[in-house]
Amino acid sequence: MPSGEDDLIAKYFKPLATDAGALGLVDDAAVLAATADDLVLTTDAVVEGVHFLPDDPPHTIARKALRVNLSDLAAKGATPAGFLLTLALRSADPAFLEPFAAALGEDAETYRCPLLGGDTVSTPGPLMISVTAFGRVPPGRMVRRDRLRAGDLIVVSGTIGDAALGLDVLQGRLTELTTDHQAFLIDRYRQPQPRSALAVAVRDHAGAAMDVSDGLAGDLAKLCAASGVSATINAAAVPLSAAARAAFGQAGLARLLSGGDDYEILCGVAADAIDSFKAAADAAGVPVAVIGTAAPGSAPPQFLDTDQRPIALKRSSFSHF
Amino acid sequence: MPSGEDDLIAKYFKPLATDAGALGLVDDAAVLAATADDLVLTTDAVVEGVHFLPDDPPHTIARKALRVNLSDLAAKGATPAGFLLTLALRSADPAFLEPFAAALGEDAETYRCPLLGGDTVSTPGPLMISVTAFGRVPPGRMVRRDRLRAGDLIVVSGTIGDAALGLDVLQGRLTELTTDHQAFLIDRYRQPQPRSALAVAVRDHAGAAMDVSDGLAGDLAKLCAASGVSATINAAAVPLSAAARAAFGQAGLARLLSGGDDYEILCGVAADAIDSFKAAADAAGVPVAVIGTAAPGSAPPQFLDTDQRPIALKRSSFSHF
Repeated sequence: MPSGEDDLIAKYFKPLATDAGALGLVDDAAVLAATADDLVLTTDAVVEGVHFLPDDPPHTIARKALRVNLSDLAAKGATPAGFLLTLALRSADPAFLEPFAAALGEDAETYRCPLLGGDTVSTPGPLMISVTAFGRVPPGRMVRRDRLRAGDLIVVSGTIGDAALGLDVLQGRLTELTTDHQAFLIDRYRQPQPRSALAVAVRDHAGAAMDVSDGLAGDLAKLCAASGVSATINAAAVPLSAAARAAFGQAGLARLLSGGDDYEILCGVAADAIDSFKAAADAAGVPVAVIGTAAPGSAPPQFLDTDQRPIALKRSSFSHF
Repeated sequence: MPSGEDDLIAKYFKPLATDAGALGLVDDAAVLAATADDLVLTTDAVVEGVHFLPDDPPHTIARKALRVNLSDLAAKGATPAGFLLTLALRSADPAFLEPFAAALGEDAETYRCPLLGGDTVSTPGPLMISVTAFGRVPPGRMVRRDRLRAGDLIVVSGTIGDAALGLDVLQGRLTELTTDHQAFLIDRYRQPQPRSALAVAVRDHAGAAMDVSDGLAGDLAKLCAASGVSATINAAAVPLSAAARAAFGQAGLARLLSGGDDYEILCGVAADAIDSFKAAADAAGVPVAVIGTAAPGSAPPQFLDTDQRPIALKRSSFSHF
């Protein structure tokens, strides 16, 4: 007596549930078998019109929903173990579900993070996808946010600000950019690249870490506040893509430092560990840049220009309320 | 530089995050420390207008959101270990958030299922609460849905159909009932009573189990289909509350057997284990009733009347699509 909901799950998501713990998605629950590792838990939801645009293609929505969680696991030094998917849908539309599920399955394989279970509900409202992801770390080894120490070097992966600029492009701004730059920035907005390859390097060499999801300035402020320290950042050292540099004049520095959706890793590395961290990052193929230093005190972190003058940043990070 | 979202979490939810693994909700992730147990994972979302009514009080919405997940853990024989909370809100309204968080905290304590983390996002749509709950079982001991065997006795806890009748009352039907009966049924709709006390008895004595959330008839069909067996149910043996018996004439049997939101446990117990299961349930203070027997074959389960004639049930369970 299969219902519409069960058919939907069987058709689109059962093929993804290849892990034994998923029990073929026929059960109420999934199992993560006991191991000697701690389990890292993270959950992030994306809402249509808030975290992605109604026009975004289904396959990029799927990738974003999963990858924002994989980004959290990487920042915690954790190896992916699987995820649960909660889908709130207006209707069971194959034109959405087919490419969505296909892209999700590809990512699950790429990042070795199998679908374990979930819930599918109807909603009269916007499409919403909530993912809970699980990762493993050796006991006590999750890299925390509240362990940044004065003197630590502040490091960031990849480039900053691209995704916020991509949203600007999608909303009709930054029209002076080349179409190649526009396409690059849009892709950075729609398809985060979780730094999973950097997870072990972060675990082995960083004292504190988090991912940059709500804007570098605001997220650094959170890292500092959680750790009870301050920081000084050399704004010119913040790594920018060629497209972001091209947009710089029109967008302004604040947009790059305070825009969201970077999904890069921000971490603190002790000075005597920085060479080994850089070597590990290099081996993992992930570019990293030292952008400043943690300092004693509780003052909000400062971004300095090339004349060492503090830069005023109005809105420091994205907030939902 | 706290944002509205961070303030909201600090004010309403940090007081609930007493477990060490929650890291005070300042981190991106939570930790479940390694133990010798398997981890059972379950996630269920509730949407305003779909799973609860816009007029339902915030404290019952909180309880329902958590308890539907605790019900799953109980049916799997698992002991609660904690939960993650994803809240999609239109606004950060204290008139909702204060009673919601207070009730959630009370339940977390009652059921020893601490808040470990979560995500709070804004939505232009209906209020949605997605909970992912974690439970522990000894290795390999999660009670599965696909292990019902021909000859097993079919057992259900508590009483069936109350919540669906409660929804009927809230929607202006069943006006002939006494106000006491109406209040009882509404409470059963709004505030499920997860059978956590029965979890160990289920784990020790049941071969297969699931919770009844989408209607007894449909959920039994799922249990049978997953296990590759059929079943025969004596409809008169299905336990009904006094209020449900009073509503029986107006509502009809099909409404009781096919309505959702029971959150009772449905399980299969081998004949030679039934006495010990009943004794364990009795010791746990949870009423259980044998309602039928699993049978070989793949026919959908049948509900028989007192003359042993099959009862036709039009819609066998709730489906979102």
